[in-house]
Amino acid sequence: MNGKNKKILLIVKKIFTKHKLNSNHARISANAIINAELVGAHSHGLSRLKMYCDRIKKKVINPNPKIKIKKISQSISQIDANNSIGFVAADIGIKQAIKNAKKTGIGLVGIKNSGHYGLSGYYAEQAVKKNLIVFCFTNAPPAIAPHGAKKSLFGTNPICFGTPTSSKIPFILDTSVSVINRGKIRVAAKNGKKLPKGVALDKFGKPTTDAKKALTGVQLPIASFRGSGLAWMVDILSGVFTGGNHGGKVKDPFDDFSGPQNIGHLFFVMKPNLFVGNYNERIKQNIKRIKRLPKTKGVKEILYPGQNKQRRYKKNLNKKINITANISEDLKKLNA
Amino acid sequence: MNGKNKKILLIVKKIFTKHKLNSNHARISANAIINAELVGAHSHGLSRLKMYCDRIKKKVINPNPKIKIKKISQSISQIDANNSIGFVAADIGIKQAIKNAKKTGIGLVGIKNSGHYGLSGYYAEQAVKKNLIVFCFTNAPPAIAPHGAKKSLFGTNPICFGTPTSSKIPFILDTSVSVINRGKIRVAAKNGKKLPKGVALDKFGKPTTDAKKALTGVQLPIASFRGSGLAWMVDILSGVFTGGNHGGKVKDPFDDFSGPQNIGHLFFVMKPNLFVGNYNERIKQNIKRIKRLPKTKGVKEILYPGQNKQRRYKKNLNKKINITANISEDLKKLNA
Repeated sequence: MNGKNKKILLIVKKIFTKHKLNSNHARISANAIINAELVGAHSHGLSRLKMYCDRIKKKVINPNPKIKIKKISQSISQIDANNSIGFVAADIGIKQAIKNAKKTGIGLVGIKNSGHYGLSGYYAEQAVKKNLIVFCFTNAPPAIAPHGAKKSLFGTNPICFGTPTSSKIPFILDTSVSVINRGKIRVAAKNGKKLPKGVALDKFGKPTTDAKKALTGVQLPIASFRGSGLAWMVDILSGVFTGGNHGGKVKDPFDDFSGPQNIGHLFFVMKPNLFVGNYNERIKQNIKRIKRLPKTKGVKEILYPGQNKQRRYKKNLNKKINITANISEDLKKLNA
Repeated sequence: MNGKNKKILLIVKKIFTKHKLNSNHARISANAIINAELVGAHSHGLSRLKMYCDRIKKKVINPNPKIKIKKISQSISQIDANNSIGFVAADIGIKQAIKNAKKTGIGLVGIKNSGHYGLSGYYAEQAVKKNLIVFCFTNAPPAIAPHGAKKSLFGTNPICFGTPTSSKIPFILDTSVSVINRGKIRVAAKNGKKLPKGVALDKFGKPTTDAKKALTGVQLPIASFRGSGLAWMVDILSGVFTGGNHGGKVKDPFDDFSGPQNIGHLFFVMKPNLFVGNYNERIKQNIKRIKRLPKTKGVKEILYPGQNKQRRYKKNLNKKINITANISEDLKKLNA
């Protein structure tokens, strides 16, 4: 990271410390936010900083949580995050899942009483860098209407899967089950930009390309009943199963300060060589076969999930993070 | 099941016995095929019987396999199915995963050297009926083009997830990651019916609604790069990870008799009460909240995945299975 971005990182850390996070938690949270900027996920980066601080001030994020880790078995752990900032709960959770998997081959960690943790791929990457296969599930505030309903209930509920590739660039699939993610709609609304067709309905159930109307309306799941089923699955795994909120009860972090979010996360981690001795060789072969397929017109290279993000990251690492006027104002006020 | 369907079941069992499957393997396979008919998945039912028998005759399914179960840990098992008929490998696999989960909370079973096992949901249901949460992954012969490619490589690679619901009807999401499943295209081709738009490309990479052209062309994944990523994930989990074929190497069971399929399956099973004491109460609440949402025009009830199938099953249970002319001929020839 270049000096300018390091400076921004330190400012964010300082802001979190001012908001009563301890130095370690502030570091974890600042790193996650700056990483989102560097991978180009601006909707999960600095634009959320004010929201996190507001939630701390209004006591719906606990800056000084007593996080409990309960051992269920050598492989399975449960974490009660005591309404910590989501970044910290997820950081502890993925590290525990990695530890369990290194010991027994598989690690399963359920987290409750957490909050929005940013990008699933950020945690998946931690496991993959330790040469592990990983699933991360989390739910989120209502954004998608279940198939047949005209009201949002599911979050954009990402499915995130990661695996080592034998190269330095991990395979990280981190896909929301909405046609486009809510963060992008939020950014479009802020910048007054139109949405593509087929992405959202307004609050009356009518198709819309107006980002602001989409935010108060309904996002559409990918592939109708299939995407709706996948969103439901993620709600069950991360909410019903872990002890987190579920079934539309996760509060919107931007709009609803009436209590903590109590989001649930589920991390599942496996050693790649459980069944084969040469996983790295096999995955290398797999990727090679797919990359050498004949391409459709205009496509230069078939990319695996995560490759594009890694390229953006590398490119952005030595550029200064773009600080918009809104964010600049946020930083000044929060740092005052 | 009524007497007429029981008679068909016995004929199918007898056909498998004639093809050198032992009585137990013939029973398992016949049950799976008849179940597919009863849930209305005709593309996975009797229309495949001849294919299975052909593969046995041509020695690419082993009627007398030495199936090895290797214990990796209390939770993890590996199965080498020795090119058994897929139904048998999957039946042994799910039972082992259930056993492991009952003992330790989680069961992970990787299966290699297997073949097409029919419907994932059929095995998921076995776990759910034992009050367990379950994932089933399997790969399949090339049908879907990776995002950016104009040649098929991924199978329709279903994602299957099941959970108890506290009612008699389990939640079983069993969704291929192609817009429509290959079996349906096969049936449309047999019956000379057109496909909807946006489902497939012909072998030259041009959109087509001709089912026969689609079979030699390319199926499209749901949600473009998202669906392509999910298909890739399933190929990695069920092929690369387990020791099965992957990266487009699974042979088409109908067209390619040059060797066994060596499909891989991965089953992952969990106790629902690992993190909460009242899972059944929680999932009941979850479903209730979703079902009472306001519905879009024309929708009478919001259904969870698996409900529709269960209704078809109940309705079909006392009707005679529809034996088409083609299938009637197959049955006669195979039973001769």
